[in-house]
Amino acid sequence: MKTTVKMMKLIPLGIGLLFSMGVSAQFGRNPIKSPEVNEDGKITFKLFAPEADTVKISGNWMPGWGTRVTMVPNDTGLYVLNIDPLPSEMYTYTYYVNGVKVLDPGNAIIVRDGVNNQSMFFAPGDVADLYQTQDVPHGVLSKVWYPSPTLDKNRRMYVYTPPGYNEGNKKYPVFYLLHGAGGDEDAWTTLGRTPYILDNLIAAGKVKPMIVVMTNGNAWSSAAPGEEPTSASTVQPDFSQMVRGEFERSIVNDVIPFIEKNYRTLADKDHRAIAGLSMGGMHTQNITNWNPGTFAYIGVMSMGIMNNPRWNTGYNEEEHKKQIAALKDSGLKLYWIGCGKEDFLFESVTNLRKLYDELGLKYTYRESSGGHTWTNWRIYLAEFAPLLFN
Amino acid sequence: MKTTVKMMKLIPLGIGLLFSMGVSAQFGRNPIKSPEVNEDGKITFKLFAPEADTVKISGNWMPGWGTRVTMVPNDTGLYVLNIDPLPSEMYTYTYYVNGVKVLDPGNAIIVRDGVNNQSMFFAPGDVADLYQTQDVPHGVLSKVWYPSPTLDKNRRMYVYTPPGYNEGNKKYPVFYLLHGAGGDEDAWTTLGRTPYILDNLIAAGKVKPMIVVMTNGNAWSSAAPGEEPTSASTVQPDFSQMVRGEFERSIVNDVIPFIEKNYRTLADKDHRAIAGLSMGGMHTQNITNWNPGTFAYIGVMSMGIMNNPRWNTGYNEEEHKKQIAALKDSGLKLYWIGCGKEDFLFESVTNLRKLYDELGLKYTYRESSGGHTWTNWRIYLAEFAPLLFN
Repeated sequence: MKTTVKMMKLIPLGIGLLFSMGVSAQFGRNPIKSPEVNEDGKITFKLFAPEADTVKISGNWMPGWGTRVTMVPNDTGLYVLNIDPLPSEMYTYTYYVNGVKVLDPGNAIIVRDGVNNQSMFFAPGDVADLYQTQDVPHGVLSKVWYPSPTLDKNRRMYVYTPPGYNEGNKKYPVFYLLHGAGGDEDAWTTLGRTPYILDNLIAAGKVKPMIVVMTNGNAWSSAAPGEEPTSASTVQPDFSQMVRGEFERSIVNDVIPFIEKNYRTLADKDHRAIAGLSMGGMHTQNITNWNPGTFAYIGVMSMGIMNNPRWNTGYNEEEHKKQIAALKDSGLKLYWIGCGKEDFLFESVTNLRKLYDELGLKYTYRESSGGHTWTNWRIYLAEFAPLLFN
Repeated sequence: MKTTVKMMKLIPLGIGLLFSMGVSAQFGRNPIKSPEVNEDGKITFKLFAPEADTVKISGNWMPGWGTRVTMVPNDTGLYVLNIDPLPSEMYTYTYYVNGVKVLDPGNAIIVRDGVNNQSMFFAPGDVADLYQTQDVPHGVLSKVWYPSPTLDKNRRMYVYTPPGYNEGNKKYPVFYLLHGAGGDEDAWTTLGRTPYILDNLIAAGKVKPMIVVMTNGNAWSSAAPGEEPTSASTVQPDFSQMVRGEFERSIVNDVIPFIEKNYRTLADKDHRAIAGLSMGGMHTQNITNWNPGTFAYIGVMSMGIMNNPRWNTGYNEEEHKKQIAALKDSGLKLYWIGCGKEDFLFESVTNLRKLYDELGLKYTYRESSGGHTWTNWRIYLAEFAPLLFN
């Protein structure tokens, strides 16, 4: 409590009192700030753990998945790790204290990916600037519930309206952006940094002002963990719904009509874009293959053709070819495919490209380094969004 | 990984693949779910920590602040604690593993209070139902940036628009709701459960549909941790700003005009309410004392008169009395005061009531059990909101 007492001396006593009770949050409660980026760019992680036997840290910048680096305590039990400067990016990490996963008590910022929480920080630089708030005009990010007769549920989504939306009667194009398996409607707004990327690229004149709609792709649920109606709290994930096409049908039957009724949209093919990552890339393919002429802009991230017989997806090559032929004639303006070289779905993407080459469906291909990661999906979003509605 | 493998058998192999890589979230990663509410209402906490020496748990239902209860492991290193049924409420807790604070890896739901994160759960029943999503019409909760010339910043707030807002041209009353010291604009939406309470009480016909505006009361900052513009990331809290009245002036000069320009509001005294807790109760008093005739509905939660000379707030009794006299004649419809019997500010509330009695300012007084806690502030919100705009 020494640090708290010291801090209290700097502020009027009465205000200090408001901080002095334990129940409300206290600025002074976490005297150790972690991580800290030093002037030389090196990054220091700190955890005070005088009773711990082992403290390790695992971060997504470390080579190899699940790597844990042992930290060493000083005399007081403060474990410190200095690491060399990292490329500017958004990073996640956790400690392990005697083998138990620990979110950094010195870092207020936690990001959730499905049921997995991680501490988060930015290594400063251009990329981090793109993914964070800047002093530019901001869009509005809204949590919106909509009826889905197709899924027989009220469901939750995010709607981003661009800067200026509330100040006029202009109509806007709409970009539907779909998450992957294990995620939910929160994912693109937090890990995907969509509102930040859009605000910043719109301010730079690189992205057209647009509405972005981020849905929940899990057909069996209504909303992210903790947001589900309590009446549905015993509902278990039904993974078979992933390949039954119900979510895909709900986008066209429920979501698009809701958005076009409730927002000022340009409601035609040339002003509708859709993209998704992993499972959302499968959803994107299904939605666009089944509804040619609905979207002029399509982005498929880290997901290829689901034709491996082991995958048991009911894949029908003839049907697929007919769908792509119809899509090819539907007035597409952009078909964009992105994949990392180390992605476990890389081969499926290669197969998809082969099929499109064979059928003459033109696409833009972006091959990045790395694998099936949010690092890539953020990059893809920042590269795909500028190509829309031009 | 055994549990993951077992789960995989239940789902198509291709979909399983989407879950099998480490980077994206995995439904199967946390095989231990904690806490669980059993059929008899008892609650079971579980933490797998075979390498730990001591595991304790601290929860806000425990008597005495900071109490830690020791947990006992079974043969496999699974620490389990069963507790008797709790009154229906929202609860927060953390583990301590070898003395280090640990958020429950078995619980995806974390709530942040300032810089302090806690794991969260609901003990089921009427109160929990009021604080969670139900199958009722939902309002829209939006993160909105607005210019504050008074504070020379762009700042962030939440705006709740009630169910039906987007479906007509009706104008709505507005309720400004202010958080306490250590909190930020997120607090009333998460710990305070405002959108849930409003949705549920509006659906029950107990609360009039209204817009609720939840600002950031820290004059030195723009937004919650992690949301501040990076250009401001070196800004340190300036606690002296709490008593300089700048935030209070920004509400009247910046926030109200922005809301009344950008939303369909009933823009008069009888359709404006304001309430705040702790520091926000001080803000509420200052805003309403300095602007009689602006709000017909006023709520002061867990905050009294700031007249203790030790508090160094520059309190001026004569000025205060003049302000209250003017407020008394300003056409108030409700002045509501709530405080817990064990609140450390109870005496200040008693002094405020004495002054109002002396000056003949009528008020409704709600004395609850407990202290300076979100448990009380949620109750106050659920009792205050139904009294507005009748």
